[in-house]
Amino acid sequence: MSFPSLHLVLPAWVEDACRPPDHDFSTTEARMQFVIELARRNVEAGTGGPFAAAVFDLDQHRLIAPGVNLVTSQRCSVAHAEIVAISLAQQQQGHYDLGHQGQPICELVSSTEPCAMCLGAIPWSGVRALVCGARGDDACAIGMDEGAKPSAWVAELEQRGIRVTRDVCRAVAVEVLQDYKRAGGTIYNARQGV
Amino acid sequence: MSFPSLHLVLPAWVEDACRPPDHDFSTTEARMQFVIELARRNVEAGTGGPFAAAVFDLDQHRLIAPGVNLVTSQRCSVAHAEIVAISLAQQQQGHYDLGHQGQPICELVSSTEPCAMCLGAIPWSGVRALVCGARGDDACAIGMDEGAKPSAWVAELEQRGIRVTRDVCRAVAVEVLQDYKRAGGTIYNARQGV
Repeated sequence: MSFPSLHLVLPAWVEDACRPPDHDFSTTEARMQFVIELARRNVEAGTGGPFAAAVFDLDQHRLIAPGVNLVTSQRCSVAHAEIVAISLAQQQQGHYDLGHQGQPICELVSSTEPCAMCLGAIPWSGVRALVCGARGDDACAIGMDEGAKPSAWVAELEQRGIRVTRDVCRAVAVEVLQDYKRAGGTIYNARQGV
Repeated sequence: MSFPSLHLVLPAWVEDACRPPDHDFSTTEARMQFVIELARRNVEAGTGGPFAAAVFDLDQHRLIAPGVNLVTSQRCSVAHAEIVAISLAQQQQGHYDLGHQGQPICELVSSTEPCAMCLGAIPWSGVRALVCGARGDDACAIGMDEGAKPSAWVAELEQRGIRVTRDVCRAVAVEVLQDYKRAGGTIYNARQGV
């Protein structure tokens, strides 16, 4: 008996989209606009759902790793944008804890608020800040399922020293979600199989 | 700028540990004993934390994919046993939804109750049953952090059609956790970096 491995690889277009010196990551809004653009391109390229995220080094306003939703293209329900961004940032930095001594202060920017899984992943990642565009409700409005999140999830993260900023460029982020639905994008969730 | 990929690969010893015809997966207890043994060997081999999981085909009582905690060895905070097992099972089955039409009924067996992240991952995976050994409290007792889980998490899963069975071989599962602590195993969590 032989088991497969999981190889999460960013689509080729992401590399082009991230090439400097095109990007200014000095403000929260600029970082969010960049991430929302990744979400839009992920839909256009057909490489996954309408979600993107990225981990930034807040000391130098530098991109450490981007992530896009790869659920359908990589046949992996775990491959949400935040999980991809966190995992690749840790590979880039060579540590499973982005909050470890010697690491820069890391921020996770997500085009939509994290689902229950990604929310649970954030404290383990070591990021010290979370910035969200669209709300979980905006994702639900196009038929996506956010899962069972604790109602006080923002307070829960902040108690762990993770600063949360919501509604950054929300309207633009919502447009990407709605365009995906209008275009007939796959609304994947576990209940499809029931 | 070039970004890394994430390649989650099972340690070589797992292949040996799973080789038939040594295993009887016909009962819940037998499947759990197999998974707890993987957790024990993961510690002995130094390939990660004291946790293992596996996805089984309940129609044929067949192992689809095992998973062990690979956080430290693969430098990835996301690489909890359940995430590894779910991801590899989906690669094996060629679909991001193990509950999709044409898939067997899938069960996730975990040596310890899922943390907040893994709990959130379960509904997206498509498994129809979860079997747990040690309790979340048992993991907390050795210093591990389970994250902010909804207090009614069992009911939440069952509402989604996922049957939950707890405390299967709990005492044996707890021994693995306590042995890990006694041996000075790494208690990793995001707060190490604060």
